[in-house]
Amino acid sequence: MLDPANPELLTLPGGGRSTATRLVVLDHSIDELYGDRVRAYFDANSVPVEYLTLPGLEESKSIENVLKIVSRLNDVGTNRLSSPPIAIGGGVLTDVVGLAASLYRRGIPYVRVTTTLLAQVDVSVAAKTGINYEGYRNRLGTYSPPPRTLIDRMFLATVPRHQLRNGMGEILKMALIKDPRLFALLERHGADLIETRFQDPDGTLGAVASEVIGRAIAGMAEELEPNLWEKNLRRSVDYGHSFSPLVEMRALPELLHGEAVTLDCVFSAVLAVRRGLLDPADLDRIVAVTRRLTLRPSHPLFCDADLLREALADTVRHRDGQQNLPILTGIGRVCFLNDVGDAEIAAAAAVMETMLDTDPVSAAR
Amino acid sequence: MLDPANPELLTLPGGGRSTATRLVVLDHSIDELYGDRVRAYFDANSVPVEYLTLPGLEESKSIENVLKIVSRLNDVGTNRLSSPPIAIGGGVLTDVVGLAASLYRRGIPYVRVTTTLLAQVDVSVAAKTGINYEGYRNRLGTYSPPPRTLIDRMFLATVPRHQLRNGMGEILKMALIKDPRLFALLERHGADLIETRFQDPDGTLGAVASEVIGRAIAGMAEELEPNLWEKNLRRSVDYGHSFSPLVEMRALPELLHGEAVTLDCVFSAVLAVRRGLLDPADLDRIVAVTRRLTLRPSHPLFCDADLLREALADTVRHRDGQQNLPILTGIGRVCFLNDVGDAEIAAAAAVMETMLDTDPVSAAR
Ligand SMILES: NC(=O)c1ccc[n+]([C@@H]2O[C@H](COP(=O)([O-])OP(=O)(O)OC[C@H]3O[C@@H](n4cnc5c(N)ncnc54)[C@H](O)[C@@H]3O)[C@@H](O)[C@H]2O)c1
Ligand SMILES: NC(=O)c1ccc[n+]([C@@H]2O[C@H](COP(=O)([O-])OP(=O)(O)OC[C@H]3O[C@@H](n4cnc5c(N)ncnc54)[C@H](O)[C@@H]3O)[C@@H](O)[C@H]2O)c1
Ligand SMILES: [Zn+2]
Ligand SMILES: [Zn+2]
Repeated sequence: MLDPANPELLTLPGGGRSTATRLVVLDHSIDELYGDRVRAYFDANSVPVEYLTLPGLEESKSIENVLKIVSRLNDVGTNRLSSPPIAIGGGVLTDVVGLAASLYRRGIPYVRVTTTLLAQVDVSVAAKTGINYEGYRNRLGTYSPPPRTLIDRMFLATVPRHQLRNGMGEILKMALIKDPRLFALLERHGADLIETRFQDPDGTLGAVASEVIGRAIAGMAEELEPNLWEKNLRRSVDYGHSFSPLVEMRALPELLHGEAVTLDCVFSAVLAVRRGLLDPADLDRIVAVTRRLTLRPSHPLFCDADLLREALADTVRHRDGQQNLPILTGIGRVCFLNDVGDAEIAAAAAVMETMLDTDPVSAAR
Repeated sequence: MLDPANPELLTLPGGGRSTATRLVVLDHSIDELYGDRVRAYFDANSVPVEYLTLPGLEESKSIENVLKIVSRLNDVGTNRLSSPPIAIGGGVLTDVVGLAASLYRRGIPYVRVTTTLLAQVDVSVAAKTGINYEGYRNRLGTYSPPPRTLIDRMFLATVPRHQLRNGMGEILKMALIKDPRLFALLERHGADLIETRFQDPDGTLGAVASEVIGRAIAGMAEELEPNLWEKNLRRSVDYGHSFSPLVEMRALPELLHGEAVTLDCVFSAVLAVRRGLLDPADLDRIVAVTRRLTLRPSHPLFCDADLLREALADTVRHRDGQQNLPILTGIGRVCFLNDVGDAEIAAAAAVMETMLDTDPVSAAR
């Protein structure tokens, strides 16, 4: 993507180039690691651009950063359509730039380049933008799919391993709700993919890396396409996203999004086993794969029944008064519950407690 | 609308009532003048509501006020769909509440009750929300039509006369671009309508008031319906809105929106006469009607050619690099220009200068 001979990064969504100046917003790690190449790219192509660098990490999803981007769009003299800003970074950066763009002049197009595993498999497909507010995740945001999203796996070569694990959390979710083949790939190759950072050092893992990323993206697209504006609030992609939002915010900056999602995946699977909906052997496999991916299956906050109840209460408001709780009935199969009670949550939380150190699966049985 | 027996104000967009608490946001004048009746209404109907009062006036269209509303939505525990907030006020209040609602949880429905003339004839039909930022009007906003808008002419009984004149500016614009009959009604009854505040003291003006408001709304709806998301940037409803946005911001709080629009309507008509597109007699009628409505046809800022050029330059960015300048070819007829030059603007500004005190029309000839 950063080869000056490759026109993709400068091409306008409708084709062609901009003569007006474009704002390029870089994640701080991208600036550090790829800043010279990015600048060389636009220089070589004589495209007028200005740069703004912002920190990644959840705390940056703030209204202050949105306004900072807006100010720079003002300075640059951004047009309504023909000079869309370019965002290059992880999900944090693209969520913030996306929100700024969707508000600027009541919405201008933008180009999204995703550079972390999580952003490539999840954010890339999504229409959402967002920032956190008053301790609530993505409390403010819009649905505004950018007309152009670019993904290049080479960026993953520099992503820290704990961030790759984080991305694996979302891939695991996708596998659990609809893709047993993807789950098997994670069981077999997940650890190696993290180890090699989805690159292809010996010429065999590249194909696996592409298949894993490709299946995750395709699964996400399939789920979102018929329900992009979320008119239907029974969404299987919400699996792992029912209890985690509040827990993630409380644990900041300790838990990354994908780590919190993984914990929620396990917790929800425990609920399923306790109801007799899920075979305990499947919970075994799930917990085993999280461990193989060096993702924790449990965490003290997921043992705190009060917090989990509060988290579910806010999710119920978000799902307009319904729990619509996605629950596994097998690996790759989901149903929805609307009657999960406090006692059940407390019991599952107690099971999570046993998973903090000991083998969790026998306890869940 | 405020009769407790009338269910319209509490009815949910899809029908029925909310059991969850709803936030009611009141313009400060509405609270002062109608607050007791509003409270009595919801009390009598036993609908759980909480109140937030915000100042009207352009300076309130700020990100701070959006965030204040968001905080209250958090406090109240607002649902995704089934407890939409209710905004009662002028265009300022409904623009700010609209933006807060369209960002909250990435967009919740809201109910809009418009209480000024300008808001009833213009905002009521619109899909837009917005706030000002860094001296630019509506720099940040969204397109998010509320599923329910209510209009009651009785609110106009308390609207200050200069605010009614302000609303007349938008009605005049609508008349100029497409409705000669509406223009004639303004010539004939405009002054009386302001005098009687669109009420019906002697039983004859009520029908005129309804026709004027009705034609303005219908004309607006007709223009917006095929182009609600503004994919087409040649919009005749932008008449009066090409030079005025920046002038209005510079003149704050002296010039109201409709006053600035009126000035732009006159200025654009002067441009049209100078190009031979508009009959000078029509300019005569336009200036005469502004005077009859006690709206100023000129203002020192509309004599400042540098400012007008800067204003047009920002509008060009907003229209994605094109002027797309709506220009009258008659009363009720519009064409678009894309080649208005600096010299022309300076010459028209000089004509505006002559209108500050003296009869402007002969000078424009
Ligand atoms: N819009 C959506 O629908 C959607 C979907 C899923 C997640 N999200 C959001 O995405 C966010 C998480 O995204 P994320 O996991 O990408 O986090 P992130 O953006 O914070 O990136 C993680 C870290 O990696 C660094 N980084 C980015 N690219 C790099 C690279 N190529 N090499 C080295 N370091 C790099 C960043 O500087 C940061 O420190 C969350 O806020 C979540 O809400 C949004
Ligand atoms: N969303 C849109 O598409 C759209 C369209 C046109 C204008 N607007 C916006 O609308 C705003 C102007 O709206 P406005 O003219 O209603 O101004 P406003 O909301 O400031 O109201 C004007 C004044 O009237 C007071 N008021 C309101 N209702 C009253 C009543 N019934 N009796 C007595 N006083 C009352 C208010 O307190 C305020 O002081 C501008 O910011 C403009 O950008 C938006
Ligand atoms: Zn997620
Ligand atoms: Zn207007």
